[in-house]
Order: sequence, then C-alpha cells, then structure tokens
Amino acid sequence: MTTTWENQYASRVAGMKSSTIRELLKLTQQPEVISFAGGMPAPELFPRERFKEAACRVLGERGEIALQYSTTEGWPELREMIGRHVTRYGIQAEADDILITTGSQQALDLVGKLLIDPGEEVVVGAPTYLGALQAFGAYQAAFLSVPLDEMGMTTEPVEALLKRRPSFMYVLPNFQNPAGVTLTLERRMILVQLARAYGVPIVEDDPYGQLRYEGEHLPPLYALDAELAASDGGQPNVIYMSTFSKTLAPGLRLAWVIAPRQVLGRLNQLKQGADLHTSTLVQMIAFEVGRGGFLDEHIQRLRAVYRERRDAMLGALDSFMPPEVSWSSPQGGLFLWAELPEGMDSQVVLEEALKKQVAFVPGSAFFGVPQDGRRFMRLNFSNARPERIREGIQRLGGCLGRLRPPMAAQQPTSAPSIG
Amino acid sequence: MTTTWENQYASRVAGMKSSTIRELLKLTQQPEVISFAGGMPAPELFPRERFKEAACRVLGERGEIALQYSTTEGWPELREMIGRHVTRYGIQAEADDILITTGSQQALDLVGKLLIDPGEEVVVGAPTYLGALQAFGAYQAAFLSVPLDEMGMTTEPVEALLKRRPSFMYVLPNFQNPAGVTLTLERRMILVQLARAYGVPIVEDDPYGQLRYEGEHLPPLYALDAELAASDGGQPNVIYMSTFSKTLAPGLRLAWVIAPRQVLGRLNQLKQGADLHTSTLVQMIAFEVGRGGFLDEHIQRLRAVYRERRDAMLGALDSFMPPEVSWSSPQGGLFLWAELPEGMDSQVVLEEALKKQVAFVPGSAFFGVPQDGRRFMRLNFSNARPERIREGIQRLGGCLGRLRPPMAAQQPTSAPSIG
Repeated sequence: MTTTWENQYASRVAGMKSSTIRELLKLTQQPEVISFAGGMPAPELFPRERFKEAACRVLGERGEIALQYSTTEGWPELREMIGRHVTRYGIQAEADDILITTGSQQALDLVGKLLIDPGEEVVVGAPTYLGALQAFGAYQAAFLSVPLDEMGMTTEPVEALLKRRPSFMYVLPNFQNPAGVTLTLERRMILVQLARAYGVPIVEDDPYGQLRYEGEHLPPLYALDAELAASDGGQPNVIYMSTFSKTLAPGLRLAWVIAPRQVLGRLNQLKQGADLHTSTLVQMIAFEVGRGGFLDEHIQRLRAVYRERRDAMLGALDSFMPPEVSWSSPQGGLFLWAELPEGMDSQVVLEEALKKQVAFVPGSAFFGVPQDGRRFMRLNFSNARPERIREGIQRLGGCLGRLRPPMAAQQPTSAPSIG
Repeated sequence: MTTTWENQYASRVAGMKSSTIRELLKLTQQPEVISFAGGMPAPELFPRERFKEAACRVLGERGEIALQYSTTEGWPELREMIGRHVTRYGIQAEADDILITTGSQQALDLVGKLLIDPGEEVVVGAPTYLGALQAFGAYQAAFLSVPLDEMGMTTEPVEALLKRRPSFMYVLPNFQNPAGVTLTLERRMILVQLARAYGVPIVEDDPYGQLRYEGEHLPPLYALDAELAASDGGQPNVIYMSTFSKTLAPGLRLAWVIAPRQVLGRLNQLKQGADLHTSTLVQMIAFEVGRGGFLDEHIQRLRAVYRERRDAMLGALDSFMPPEVSWSSPQGGLFLWAELPEGMDSQVVLEEALKKQVAFVPGSAFFGVPQDGRRFMRLNFSNARPERIREGIQRLGGCLGRLRPPMAAQQPTSAPSIG
C-alpha cells in the first residue's frame, strides 16, 4: 500500500477556487498582451534608485542585523513609521498595536486561521477579493454573500446574516476590489454598530485607501468602532489591515495588521508558527525607503499618475464599448468593474480577448458562487500607460461588439448593478 | 453585546506551546548575555559585501521585476539553482519539483494545513523542533512521540504508531534539532519502508544537512523513497524541505520544498492563499549571491568555523561541567543536547543562568509532553565565538554545580539517553 495523496487532503482543498482562470491568465505574462488582469502597480513608478540606495545602506551599515533572525512582531522602526503613517488616515496606533505581515495575504490567512473553524460562515461582499476567498476557503469557511451597489456593501441584508453568528464580516471599504466602489460613511456606521451589537468581528482590508484620486477620505471602520468602544466601554471589534504593495512595491511582500492587543498577540503567535517573521532585510529596506516623508510624497506621485490612467480608461470605455455595457467610476484604487448585457459570459469574452492580446479577470473569480459573476469584468488601470489602455479597451470593445447577442437592445445604465 | 475575543479562537490556540520560555529568552537579546539559546548563524560570517553587490545589481538592472508581484512557485533561476544544489546531497529534482517558501517554517505550516485535520495525529521525535510543534499545533494536531537515541529516531515504536493511521511522520534526519543526532542509514531505510507499507507520508525537514563537520553524508529519506517508488511502481511518499537560513542568511526567510508534483501543486495553491509568493526581491538577491559556485564555497567556510565552535563547546563542557551531566557529540548542525542528573529542572537552571548572563533553551520546549524534557538543555554553538563559548559554558557549569542536588552521585554516561 502506498500513499494515495488525494485522500490525505481532499477536504482541505475543497473550499478553494478553481484554477481555470489562473491558467488562462498565465497567457497574460507575454509582453505583447495588454493586461488589465492583475492588480499590479505601474513598474516604471517603483522608486528603484531609492530602493537601491536603501538596500546598499542597510546591507553596508547594518548587514549583520538585516540578514539575521528578528522578532515576529516586526522591525520596530518600521512599525513606528506605520503608526505615524496611519494617523493621517484616521487611525491612532502605536508600534505595539501593529503586526508586520508577509503581505496582506498573510494577514488574511492568519485571520482565517484564528477565527474560522471548518464549516463556519464568513460574511463577504458579492463580489469580493479573490485572495480572501482563497485564504478563508483554505480553512473551509462557508460564505454568506452581501450584494454591493455603487455605495459599497449593502446594509439591509447584513443583520439577518449576523444573527447566524458568523465568524466575522470581511469588508473592503475603499475602492473595493473588484468593484471599485467605496462604502459611504453612513453605511460604515451601520456596519460597525451592527457588528458590535451582534458581537461579530469586522475584518477591514484597506490596501487602496491611500490611493484616492478625488473626493474626501472617509474614516476607517477601525476608527469608528474605536470611538464606539471608548464610549460604550466594550472591546474594540475591528481588525484592520493595509499594505505597502500598492504604494512602495508588491515584490517586497510587506503589510501590516492593526488590532486589539489581545487579538494581535494571538495573530503574532500564529505568525510565529507560519513563517517566524517577515524578512528582516525587506523590512529594513522598506523603512529606509519610506522614511523622512518619502512615503507620503511618493503616494502623491502615484495618485497623479493613476488618476490619469483611470481617466484614460473611462474615456476609452466611453469611446469603444458597445452601448449595452456599463461600468463603475471609482474614486481611487486600481480597478473598474464592467457589466455585460444579459446573455454574455465574461469567461467567453476573455478567451476571445486573449486572441486579440488583451486580458482582464472575469467576474466569476470574485463571487462565492462563481456563476453570479458571469456578466462582469474587472479591469485594472494602474499597470498600463494611457495609450496602451486606450489601445487595449479599443480591442476589447471590438471583441464585445462581435460577441454580443444580436437580440441585445438593452439601454446602457450609468452605474452597474454590482453583484 | 460586544465580541468576547477569547471565545472566537479558544480551540485554535489550545494546541500551541506556552510562551513562558520565549518570554525568558527575550532577556537573551541583551548584548552582554552569552546566548546558547537561539539557532542563529554567526552574523560575522554573513557574506555582507556579496549581498550588497547582489542587491545593487538586482535593483539597478532588474528593479522593475524585483519589486513587482511574481509567481507563487518561485523565481525560476533560483529554483534551478536549488535543483543543482540538492543534487550534491543526493536528490534529483528539477525546477518544477521545487516550491520556494517564506522560510522552512512556512513549509511546515503549509504541510500542516494540507495534511492535518483537527485532532489528527502526527508522529514526531521526542524531542523535536519546537517550531514544528507550533506549526502543526495550530492545526490542532495530536502528537505521537517516538524517543530518540544517539542514532536518531528509534524505529521499534514506529510500526505500532503507523497502524493508527496518523497524518504523517515528521523526521529531522541530520544533526537533529534539538538533540544533534543523525539518523543512521539503516534506520532511514526502515522508516521509509514502514511509511510506504502503511501509506503514511514522511515530512523530511533538513535545514542542517549541508553543515556536516565529520563523517559521510547520508542519503535523504526522499531519495531512498524515490528509489523504492521507482522499483515498486508506487507513488513517492516523502515531502522534503531545506533552507537558506543556515547557509546564506535567516533574515531572508527563504527555503524550499521538494515533493511529488501533485502534492507540490496543492502546496502551491495553499501558499497562494497564505502569502501569494515569497518576496521577489529576496529571491533574486539570493540567486545573485549564491550563483557561480558561491553557495558551495560559502558552505565550506561555514563548516570550518562551526566545526571549531562545536569543538570549543565540547572542550569547555569537558572542562567545566559537573561529572553527572552528559551531552551529545553532533557530527554537524548547530546544537548540542545536554542531560542533567535526576532531580534537576532545566527551567530552574535557566533562571539561574540568566542571572549570570548566560542562556540556553530548556528541553521542555521540544517535547509534545513538556515535562519529558525537564532534564535537558539545548546548547547552540554556531552563534558565539570560541572564547565566548568557553566563557559561557564555564558560567553555566558554575550554576549547575551550585544547583545540583547534594544527593546526586550519579556517574556520567558517554551519551545522553535522549527523550
């Protein structure tokens, strides 16, 4: 008798997303493809010279420390810098309130490990971030989906779901991935109050909040909840996470969690078992790069460039999309979300689009129930330059024009009915 | 009602080790303390200049790639280099057989996630690596302990345990952490055959195999099993892991898994959910540092220095330990394992030792049942220079002399009865 590996882990992979889409998207790595598929920052904006200087300085002056083991909670100077940084976004946090993680994806994984028992339910948006479904799915979560509209997660369905005592509610408040929508202040308050009332934690994932191109920054759920906790004397109820992936560089794999201290202590223990600590070298380099106000200045530059690209994509969509296609108009972040007319399937569109060397992610990837996303496409606008964006949208519009059902005489709507 | 966080995750942390020892060991970070506690390489041996040049080259020439997202399986050039490297240690592997992980600790975590359902049993040595107990404990594994002796894991108890159909057997074949012992070739064969016979996978953790100071390299269990699989036509049954932490630098958090392809595919999927991928920058720097034969040359240098330190510690133990203390004499790796006489408790010894500014890890940390390790101490010899080793062992010998029970008239034994 030898090991039949399938028996060993059948249950552990049952909850994970199919890899069909990922296989398709491997094709997008060819340079001639115009890809709106990834969530990739513009590589030409990476502050490479500053990274190079930082790496030389760190390795030259403190190499013995940078190359050695370090503590699980993270490099102290970096945590202090993050504490100062998040203050500008409405969060009061000291270094001891912050745990460095190996990307936000690890933060999601640790939260899943801490909070999900097999079969337990998690409230998510429909659509929501694919990687969160993967992370929580690996712990065999069941998903309770809440539809989104142009004001973010709808709040009406939430109370009934919270009564089921799910493990937690997962919320992407700003320029949501994939829908690009932002949760209004009123809804933030409702979600925070409901979650407190039912004793269900909120996991607030905020990778894009720093990348706002218009409108006013809204307070994080973490901050709204902290105020309520201070006034009602209860415990804080939000686990907040953000990242350097969209501001400095995703190749670092560097992010952070801010949470009530007892929760942070447990996450720290789980992180110790998961990878001991995040690379000391990477943390020290990121601190050297970000220090002295550079992080904020760099974010200003990114905002200007990405705003232009968003506008380029919106303009190209106006010019080249068939009239029955609609799309969101995000105030920040990296993504637009487009809706196809009844009867079209974005996975079929992707196959056609790849023949014309243009790519996007079909909506099904972002739903707990994949078929709910059949008519949607996620379009990234941060990675390609404006002229390439225009060219890619023109090609995509051509594909859609050829593929649309002859019956479709539906009128365009100004905002898609997301989910 | 607000969240009572304790209820949310009581079961998830029940399996984790107490942090008492870790709290004690925080004291060892003061520079005046001579620490035999960590598993830290000698920082003065880090090839800092080469790292600096590599980082400059990578960021200067390929910064747009190094700072960007990359694939979960790992940087292709690095995986090819690892494939060539492990051939020297008896493993045939191509790039596609290798998954890069964020340190071996992540490899252990992913294996636990893939193979352990809550309450399932895992066969481990007694003693074994603390971090493995943590990683597997987070998935609520129950541990089946197999005593070690000077030839490594004893094989007599194993068959009865395999009949219980545990998730897998965890084996550290070379210079085991913490006991320093090496599994004999005969026992390797027995374990591999038994595991195949009962269809129980082996997880082979080999962080130290490259650091042998005397004797002949022995074939990995992975290779022995592959031979059997080739002749009996069954599936390969060993998941192998090793790391750059003990050869290049632990601050990178960079390691690898070699496993049957279907298993590797599943681990890859789980890694995607756990941290997307290991830092592109770190992987490219490590490749630049290790390439062109440097990795092998550097390992030769490490062997010479660590052999000297091992000998310094053995000599100091001979000179300064009370006669009723015994210890192992490892052929490689980073650790010695010492046994105290009946009636002594190494945790009490640690408290005394810290007053004299010397530290080690008490044996209880390395046992599924902590009290089984009460009379043991793990002593690291790689981190401190020979003169500091001698000074530290002298201090430790003094503490032991003062603490030993007046009745102890037991004779020393040449090798400790490990476990």
